[in-house]
Amino acid sequence: MEFLISIEVSLPPEMPPATRDALLAQERVRGLELVESGVIRHIWRIPGRIANVAVWEAQDATALHEALVSLPVFPWTTIEVTPLATHPLMAGGVPRA
Amino acid sequence: MEFLISIEVSLPPEMPPATRDALLAQERVRGLELVESGVIRHIWRIPGRIANVAVWEAQDATALHEALVSLPVFPWTTIEVTPLATHPLMAGGVPRA
Amino acid sequence: MEFLISIEVSLPPEMPPATRDALLAQERVRGLELVESGVIRHIWRIPGRIANVAVWEAQDATALHEALVSLPVFPWTTIEVTPLATHPLMAGGVPRA
Amino acid sequence: MEFLISIEVSLPPEMPPATRDALLAQERVRGLELVESGVIRHIWRIPGRIANVAVWEAQDATALHEALVSLPVFPWTTIEVTPLATHPLMAGGVPRA
Amino acid sequence: MEFLISIEVSLPPEMPPATRDALLAQERVRGLELVESGVIRHIWRIPGRIANVAVWEAQDATALHEALVSLPVFPWTTIEVTPLATHPLMAGGVPRA
Amino acid sequence: MEFLISIEVSLPPEMPPATRDALLAQERVRGLELVESGVIRHIWRIPGRIANVAVWEAQDATALHEALVSLPVFPWTTIEVTPLATHPLMAGGVPRA
Amino acid sequence: MEFLISIEVSLPPEMPPATRDALLAQERVRGLELVESGVIRHIWRIPGRIANVAVWEAQDATALHEALVSLPVFPWTTIEVTPLATHPLMAGGVPRA
Amino acid sequence: MEFLISIEVSLPPEMPPATRDALLAQERVRGLELVESGVIRHIWRIPGRIANVAVWEAQDATALHEALVSLPVFPWTTIEVTPLATHPLMAGGVPRA
Amino acid sequence: MEFLISIEVSLPPEMPPATRDALLAQERVRGLELVESGVIRHIWRIPGRIANVAVWEAQDATALHEALVSLPVFPWTTIEVTPLATHPLMAGGVPRA
Amino acid sequence: MEFLISIEVSLPPEMPPATRDALLAQERVRGLELVESGVIRHIWRIPGRIANVAVWEAQDATALHEALVSLPVFPWTTIEVTPLATHPLMAGGVPRA
Repeated sequence: MEFLISIEVSLPPEMPPATRDALLAQERVRGLELVESGVIRHIWRIPGRIANVAVWEAQDATALHEALVSLPVFPWTTIEVTPLATHPLMAGGVPRA
Repeated sequence: MEFLISIEVSLPPEMPPATRDALLAQERVRGLELVESGVIRHIWRIPGRIANVAVWEAQDATALHEALVSLPVFPWTTIEVTPLATHPLMAGGVPRA
Repeated sequence: MEFLISIEVSLPPEMPPATRDALLAQERVRGLELVESGVIRHIWRIPGRIANVAVWEAQDATALHEALVSLPVFPWTTIEVTPLATHPLMAGGVPRA
Repeated sequence: MEFLISIEVSLPPEMPPATRDALLAQERVRGLELVESGVIRHIWRIPGRIANVAVWEAQDATALHEALVSLPVFPWTTIEVTPLATHPLMAGGVPRA
Repeated sequence: MEFLISIEVSLPPEMPPATRDALLAQERVRGLELVESGVIRHIWRIPGRIANVAVWEAQDATALHEALVSLPVFPWTTIEVTPLATHPLMAGGVPRA
Repeated sequence: MEFLISIEVSLPPEMPPATRDALLAQERVRGLELVESGVIRHIWRIPGRIANVAVWEAQDATALHEALVSLPVFPWTTIEVTPLATHPLMAGGVPRA
Repeated sequence: MEFLISIEVSLPPEMPPATRDALLAQERVRGLELVESGVIRHIWRIPGRIANVAVWEAQDATALHEALVSLPVFPWTTIEVTPLATHPLMAGGVPRA
Repeated sequence: MEFLISIEVSLPPEMPPATRDALLAQERVRGLELVESGVIRHIWRIPGRIANVAVWEAQDATALHEALVSLPVFPWTTIEVTPLATHPLMAGGVPRA
Repeated sequence: MEFLISIEVSLPPEMPPATRDALLAQERVRGLELVESGVIRHIWRIPGRIANVAVWEAQDATALHEALVSLPVFPWTTIEVTPLATHPLMAGGVPRA
Repeated sequence: MEFLISIEVSLPPEMPPATRDALLAQERVRGLELVESGVIRHIWRIPGRIANVAVWEAQDATALHEALVSLPVFPWTTIEVTPLATHPLMAGGVPRA
């Protein structure tokens, strides 16, 4: 099942740069794992904010929650979850033509 | 350029069924055209509402507006537009692995 | 998978009483079917409004949407959907003791 | 009487891990007591947040408040309380069939 | 148990005056019954709106809902319900001195 | 003249317990004075929050403001003030029967 | 006592012009009476809306409500009421110099 | 003085096409006059809505209001007005370089 | 030109009393200057908050901004600005009678 | 393509003045570069806040995001981005006359 996930990251400006850099490096590693394993199907950056919107695939909300809390930046995030249903214009997740 | 488009459709319950059916049939035809021409790249239904969220491709906001007003249900919609930037985890719109 | 579903019904006060009564009778029949088939697991009334909050069981958001639009009052509703994950204090949906 | 209780927990990211772990361990003990004593009837996790939604049973709002402030994480919570009325589709809290 | 009840009434300006007057006369009769039977314990008007805020007494949310839907203006209302707990500064509902 | 006053208190969780206890003890003393002098006419606790809703009596908004800022917890509060008008169902502040 | 009153008027665009003109003529007459009798102390128009913000003088909220409902456009208004306290920079309502 | 003006137009979908076309033709004529006379300095369309955002020049809020109510679509609009101050990066309204 | 200005001041409760007293003393001096020079035409306190609403006179938004940032408490404020137009019930800023 | 960009800057009042001055000096340098290179086309100050509204030109949302995060104050900002379409009253970005 797919979910639309909006993630806003609020790192405090006074976080030491080394701490911040290490955190974001870990986040990138974990992000790549989630992309490669097919959990994150699509992801876009929202301009002007440290934020993204993405389509995640998970068996159910329990598995989704476990994936989301695995993000190193999770303690600094605000996350919105919208469950997605199939739209008749798409077949099997790809355009129907 | 890609945009995240959320469309909520509010047809009045008292609309005659024949009018409604004709409108939705036209909407489906136009939707398929937009999918086939690559303007609508992905689309999902939001459960519990006559609503969808989709990724649209357009040269700029002017072309996007023209595509959105071409929807037969446009007069009954509330539409939110979010411009999307490329996320480093994706390359060329597909997972980077 | 379970979903928390909040449904608010806004029937126009000027709806003829016979139309309203017939609609609510159909709604009750469909509600009982959904309870008996295990789709609606729990349901409560919100005092002071024609509204309820309920726990629905569905395979995914697509099946959930189909169940929600099957409600006769659907055209007059505002529905909020929250996907639910298992809480460690519960095991198999019943208190863990 | 039943209440729908939404609890969001906002622990500051800079809380020392030992303090945080001890607090959450105490929270778990208290949560189990409330489940075993029948105060918390159902509880689910909201994916993507340190949050839950639950059905609490209490004699009245005064008893409910005492139960809520007994949570070790109470000082870090935002809590919403919705009183619940019986829905005609349920009889005695279980599906009517 | 006591509840804080905020009621806003939105009668359409185009309602015929005779219909409106009859409705408000019925509302007044029902209001007096609820005051005399001790269901409405206190009630105040909110200036500038057809609205009031009141303290209602009911055994639980189910009884409260029945009392609220008994108001003749119920189909035109927006109602907010807040359950009230006893405050230590009051004893038995009257000032503690 | 009467006012509906909603007070939410946000003490920081990291306030030292002794400071907090002393502050709340002072608050209780001041609260009792305001009840005994007839300024606070009714007061209820909002379950799940350090909050209350109350009916205050003051000659005008200037006198009300002086009474509110006299609360020891005032610097940590969010306060909403709603002026109250007499409702025809009440006479002299007590039920009309 | 003074109150800050914000009034937004929402006349339906389809109201017949003659009805609208008569209503606004009555409104103007009543407005002048309220200005001349000192109830409306100051009034300004909010640009871009059929709306105004004003300072009204009334003995209490009950008298204020009676004055507000005396406006011919009252059934089409949304009104916000803010009680005003004296500011130390003003003495007797005029600048302190 | 300049103002940022956001205008959203909500024509009812059931407005007869001829009425709508005549209204929009009048709106275009008036819009061109306001552009030519320098009242509307810049204007952009908001994609996905019948809405625009523009910079208007007017001597003060009174003159601005007169210009806004001169729009033929005014009865169907929701307008937000933000007064604009000069930014140090601009000199005389053009980039400072 | 006149503006309706709402100012809310949020001094942190942990600010040392001497710092706070000095700041508020400076604020009072600056406030009196603005009243005496006719920039602040009217000002009222909002009960229950460290907040005020006032009518300021300034040539345009640029001059208004300079006056607002001259307030010693400016870094701790949230300010809302509403431009005001002349209302036909007033002539020259005083009641028309 | 053009975007309407609203930027609110929230520097903590307790930031040392030297740090603040250095940051704002860097911000001014970067702002001038963006104006001179044609990225910021128009910019206005919002009175009463450390905020501005501006029209930015960028090839797409990805280029826009890079320009926005290049602002030295970016970590302390809240930014809203609205894509802008051409309005028929303008031709080539200048008034059509």
